[in-house]
Amino acid sequence: MNSFGRLYRVTTFGESHGPAIGGVIDGFPPGIELDLEAVQRELDRRKPGSGTGASKRREEDRVQFLSGIFEGKSLGTPIGFIIPNTDARSDDYARMRDIYRPSHADFTYQAKYGIRDYRGGGRASARETACRVVAGALARQVLRREGISVSAFTSQIGQVSIDSSTRLSFSEVYRNPMRCPSMELAERMEEYLKSVAAEGDTVGGCVQCVVQGLPVGLGEPVYGKLQSMLAAAMLSIPAVKGFEYGAGFGITCMKGSQATDLFTVSAEGSISTRTNWSGGIQGGISNGLPVIMNVGFKPAATMMRDMECIDRFGSEVKLNPGGRHDVCVVPRAVPVVEAMACCVILDAYMLDATMLTPPDPLN
Amino acid sequence: MNSFGRLYRVTTFGESHGPAIGGVIDGFPPGIELDLEAVQRELDRRKPGSGTGASKRREEDRVQFLSGIFEGKSLGTPIGFIIPNTDARSDDYARMRDIYRPSHADFTYQAKYGIRDYRGGGRASARETACRVVAGALARQVLRREGISVSAFTSQIGQVSIDSSTRLSFSEVYRNPMRCPSMELAERMEEYLKSVAAEGDTVGGCVQCVVQGLPVGLGEPVYGKLQSMLAAAMLSIPAVKGFEYGAGFGITCMKGSQATDLFTVSAEGSISTRTNWSGGIQGGISNGLPVIMNVGFKPAATMMRDMECIDRFGSEVKLNPGGRHDVCVVPRAVPVVEAMACCVILDAYMLDATMLTPPDPLN
Amino acid sequence: MNSFGRLYRVTTFGESHGPAIGGVIDGFPPGIELDLEAVQRELDRRKPGSGTGASKRREEDRVQFLSGIFEGKSLGTPIGFIIPNTDARSDDYARMRDIYRPSHADFTYQAKYGIRDYRGGGRASARETACRVVAGALARQVLRREGISVSAFTSQIGQVSIDSSTRLSFSEVYRNPMRCPSMELAERMEEYLKSVAAEGDTVGGCVQCVVQGLPVGLGEPVYGKLQSMLAAAMLSIPAVKGFEYGAGFGITCMKGSQATDLFTVSAEGSISTRTNWSGGIQGGISNGLPVIMNVGFKPAATMMRDMECIDRFGSEVKLNPGGRHDVCVVPRAVPVVEAMACCVILDAYMLDATMLTPPDPLN
Amino acid sequence: MNSFGRLYRVTTFGESHGPAIGGVIDGFPPGIELDLEAVQRELDRRKPGSGTGASKRREEDRVQFLSGIFEGKSLGTPIGFIIPNTDARSDDYARMRDIYRPSHADFTYQAKYGIRDYRGGGRASARETACRVVAGALARQVLRREGISVSAFTSQIGQVSIDSSTRLSFSEVYRNPMRCPSMELAERMEEYLKSVAAEGDTVGGCVQCVVQGLPVGLGEPVYGKLQSMLAAAMLSIPAVKGFEYGAGFGITCMKGSQATDLFTVSAEGSISTRTNWSGGIQGGISNGLPVIMNVGFKPAATMMRDMECIDRFGSEVKLNPGGRHDVCVVPRAVPVVEAMACCVILDAYMLDATMLTPPDPLN
Repeated sequence: MNSFGRLYRVTTFGESHGPAIGGVIDGFPPGIELDLEAVQRELDRRKPGSGTGASKRREEDRVQFLSGIFEGKSLGTPIGFIIPNTDARSDDYARMRDIYRPSHADFTYQAKYGIRDYRGGGRASARETACRVVAGALARQVLRREGISVSAFTSQIGQVSIDSSTRLSFSEVYRNPMRCPSMELAERMEEYLKSVAAEGDTVGGCVQCVVQGLPVGLGEPVYGKLQSMLAAAMLSIPAVKGFEYGAGFGITCMKGSQATDLFTVSAEGSISTRTNWSGGIQGGISNGLPVIMNVGFKPAATMMRDMECIDRFGSEVKLNPGGRHDVCVVPRAVPVVEAMACCVILDAYMLDATMLTPPDPLN
Repeated sequence: MNSFGRLYRVTTFGESHGPAIGGVIDGFPPGIELDLEAVQRELDRRKPGSGTGASKRREEDRVQFLSGIFEGKSLGTPIGFIIPNTDARSDDYARMRDIYRPSHADFTYQAKYGIRDYRGGGRASARETACRVVAGALARQVLRREGISVSAFTSQIGQVSIDSSTRLSFSEVYRNPMRCPSMELAERMEEYLKSVAAEGDTVGGCVQCVVQGLPVGLGEPVYGKLQSMLAAAMLSIPAVKGFEYGAGFGITCMKGSQATDLFTVSAEGSISTRTNWSGGIQGGISNGLPVIMNVGFKPAATMMRDMECIDRFGSEVKLNPGGRHDVCVVPRAVPVVEAMACCVILDAYMLDATMLTPPDPLN
Repeated sequence: MNSFGRLYRVTTFGESHGPAIGGVIDGFPPGIELDLEAVQRELDRRKPGSGTGASKRREEDRVQFLSGIFEGKSLGTPIGFIIPNTDARSDDYARMRDIYRPSHADFTYQAKYGIRDYRGGGRASARETACRVVAGALARQVLRREGISVSAFTSQIGQVSIDSSTRLSFSEVYRNPMRCPSMELAERMEEYLKSVAAEGDTVGGCVQCVVQGLPVGLGEPVYGKLQSMLAAAMLSIPAVKGFEYGAGFGITCMKGSQATDLFTVSAEGSISTRTNWSGGIQGGISNGLPVIMNVGFKPAATMMRDMECIDRFGSEVKLNPGGRHDVCVVPRAVPVVEAMACCVILDAYMLDATMLTPPDPLN
Repeated sequence: MNSFGRLYRVTTFGESHGPAIGGVIDGFPPGIELDLEAVQRELDRRKPGSGTGASKRREEDRVQFLSGIFEGKSLGTPIGFIIPNTDARSDDYARMRDIYRPSHADFTYQAKYGIRDYRGGGRASARETACRVVAGALARQVLRREGISVSAFTSQIGQVSIDSSTRLSFSEVYRNPMRCPSMELAERMEEYLKSVAAEGDTVGGCVQCVVQGLPVGLGEPVYGKLQSMLAAAMLSIPAVKGFEYGAGFGITCMKGSQATDLFTVSAEGSISTRTNWSGGIQGGISNGLPVIMNVGFKPAATMMRDMECIDRFGSEVKLNPGGRHDVCVVPRAVPVVEAMACCVILDAYMLDATMLTPPDPLN
């Protein structure tokens, strides 16, 4: 169950401290000129150590493509890739062999499999998300040709949150380590994280993601709804506790008369809606408006203070995590959320192409 | 894409006003004594017309099983079933042929397929959820044998919401039309819905769902996380806008030091946690504590007042929906949320059984 | 595992003597005008009792469509259908409750599931193939629009076989009960079957199937090869023991210099081959020539004579099958082979449509 | 579509002359002590250059495992692996850029994708089968623990074939380059291949495969029949033209009275059959007898003589393949057939484990 997607299908492998992580991207369309440096740049954005609140682990995170690309173009065959684990200091973790950290996957993996790679979380490590970024960055290159863009940003860190008065400037997102579309707010977030770090604590937050340029018609009815695919994708990211789209949970307090998206027809006859409470999806199918979603992350469970663990014999053990850990995972999660959205949208796009008969919406 | 689940696999069909809706349940374990009356009772709970705020459509909703059951026991072969549409007054809908209602799937289905059954929402109708209830009720009978229970209830309708002071009594849930585990709150909800109905309006709300008795170890890492499967299931229910589990979006404001679930070991050596911010899942895998989730619903888009629609030529049209419509879908969604949870949990349970080697958590 | 296909996906249910068999066809393209009478006609071709060598069971085999079709056209939503079992004389089978017939699935079903519907083979009955015919007949209506035809015929019954001297006339196939494209050979087959029937015996044979009009490019490399999909489909038909395509097993004795398909280029530049040892597929992908395959069937295991069975206590039991049984399943299997080929080809056709970038073969 | 299997799921990638081929094995059971040297030994058996009739390409074919294994045991997480392409002399192939070889996949890949890696067949190269051998060798280590063995051997090369008088000795199979269970026949095959090589020609043949020790109950009814899974697996191997099991095509000439497997009950009450025309499968489900299958291969299309090709402009071109090519692929295909059978059987074994209720065959 380490695969994701139906036609744009990503399979990943790798433990945090094994020789390498990597994956296979199956279903990538053929004949597409690829910008592999752009993939590396997206990967760099997820890298630890690029700002306050980020783990100090220094991985090169250089992706190596092994197949599926020929003379700069995609072949339509599977794209295999690996990212070597170069900075895996396993000795940091030797003492964790028999220890279950609280709010980590140590105990559940041990219980499920009867064995685990205890070094740095093994397969449960968020390091696996680097492979998602590779798959997403490649998907984005197909989407861009179709006029579709996917952008995510930090909308909340702990109590510091974008609100209706915040002036958003999306070009700022990757210019500040908070990945926030407001420099001013980014600074407040960074200040806040410093204070949290000073306490040896961690904090949660939210990532918002916007997909623009979607054609009408993506998503499948009933069980393959676009929001269902997106929710599954987002909840598969480590530390995510919630997903909402459009007006989200806020709409649960609203009345139908407030929350209905009335239609508007342009002079050219194209159909749109005046508002977008629906978040760009009706009945599971994109309606051409931006798809907007919000993803909630818990505070990282590894803090820079003693952790109250148990060992496998049931005794309480104190553990100083040492190592290299994020104060807040949200900024580094921004490219991961984008990547998952890119994969889902391309998959939905390809699925929609299977219908054979080009529909005529107004006939 | 009208199938759901991997090993416990449900495929449904049917338009709201066709001859019947129905489905096929594949992967049901063999040799299980089935209580088909219990399935019908669960279906009756979803039926319209059972309380304030519910549509007046009077469907018999009698499920007929066509296969997979022999002499009262499951055969292990697919269980086919149909629910005839007996009270489909299609003439109510004839005028909707060329009309797109706001915040409905009329336009997106037409755009995607170039054709749609415009009667009562066709395939997009929430009537399809009756099939989910059948599949869930059967799954529940397997889960019960394994000591697993799944219960949902209305936790919020519009502004009226369960809070920390509410005394919950789960035996009340199906004794009041609001499906609320507090009779007192149920009455307030019902009052509130009456006032909303008097305005010809609708309102949203939330359903909470609790799974108890889960063994440690269900769920697959990375893309098959238990929360990922649950989120996809819940977001596939019509009108759902958000999913959260454990501490949900609330945790995004919390610090790691507040939101960590410290372990506790019983005298017999069984491992548990003192708190359950995690919602019973760590690293995508159940940890034995209750799995708690919250599902947010938008207000129904069909209100008992004129709707501002457009027709397929782009002209504005007023439509009085007439017909039979819910003021709030939440109470009727309670058994649907339960059903989806039952299907997911059984699927995860069966997937876990494929590992061949029984793990020993403390070794 | 009662589903078949990836994008054109068929799920079936039903025991031989339950209330009905049926299925769900998911992925049928929208907006296609359907000839449902043609579906029924194909179903009638599979019906027992239409010739020498056929079971005397008289099922009406009337298919009822329950969804996915509106005003004569496909909706793109799942097509649910049932075929009621009207002539199921279960009392014929009551004595079979504890009996395992040789070369039947009685024992293996009982061993696998611990329970079985012993009436007429239950789920293992070839009656299930009626559902395949429905799915294939609908698929054929899409394929025909794309210029693709699928034709099967009886090429061998026992020792009586088409050879290089037989004059084939495909319009004859459904005009004789043997489904043979030579009236003269059909008569010899029928004579032969009469003699086999007189002995109370049964006999095997072969069905050949030809797909014409395929575009170049169907089929996926490596594990999704067109021949792999076809082989899986054919081997899933009851009584099939072998599958070969193109020159088949005959090619195993040949040399490369004999069995190579040299190219030929038409005046217009279209590429073809002079011979078709490859059977229309190269590297798993259709090359535009006819796809030719051969499917081998065993003799039916139920003969009109005493069968040496055992019961579940391990004792030997003689059983006179009575009931209604085929002397040779091959003629009735012809529409089933066609149906499976239609489903596979449409699935491959739809999968090929997902590649987004229309390839240019000569660039 | 570069994945194979449902629960034991193999995904491969790689072109013949790219940096590496490799794959991901998902679903491998946890906690199993692995003999990685044994995997390498199986890979060595597939290597070119190990006998008469084999290509002279000298690949090291060293598999590197990147994940899923920890301290010598499987983790239950995906096993990623690569096999570097060390001896890829791409310059041999440069002239093939615009050329379509007859009975190769050059033209169909170009037509399907509009692009191809023309070096050594690219993705269509049989080099991909090395990844299958890795997946199969690992699967075999699980099967062996369950008492299941899988053995294949060369049963025919061109006109030289095992017959009923051949004395079979399975321990010989990997001691002669023909992979034949009779040293005497192996010598005749080798002589024959020398003569074929002298003509610059190639020849086809057959591989037989036997699975022993299977429990009763593997395989799923209807579309997931064990023979259906095996057929799909075998037809996905390059150059395979046919699959048969049990009595195979030979049974098509037989009568029911000859070809029925009568039961026999041992003193201990275990049920078996006196003959095995059925090939160990009834109704798609294993019956405990050996599963026997036969796989037919065409002669290799690349011969050591001028090939009559066309180029992409439609002109005829002569090509001397030079390079390194097999006179007969059959001996090298033996471990590939074994590998595919191992993967299928393990997948079926794991699927069967999902049924939850242990069946009691005689109750």
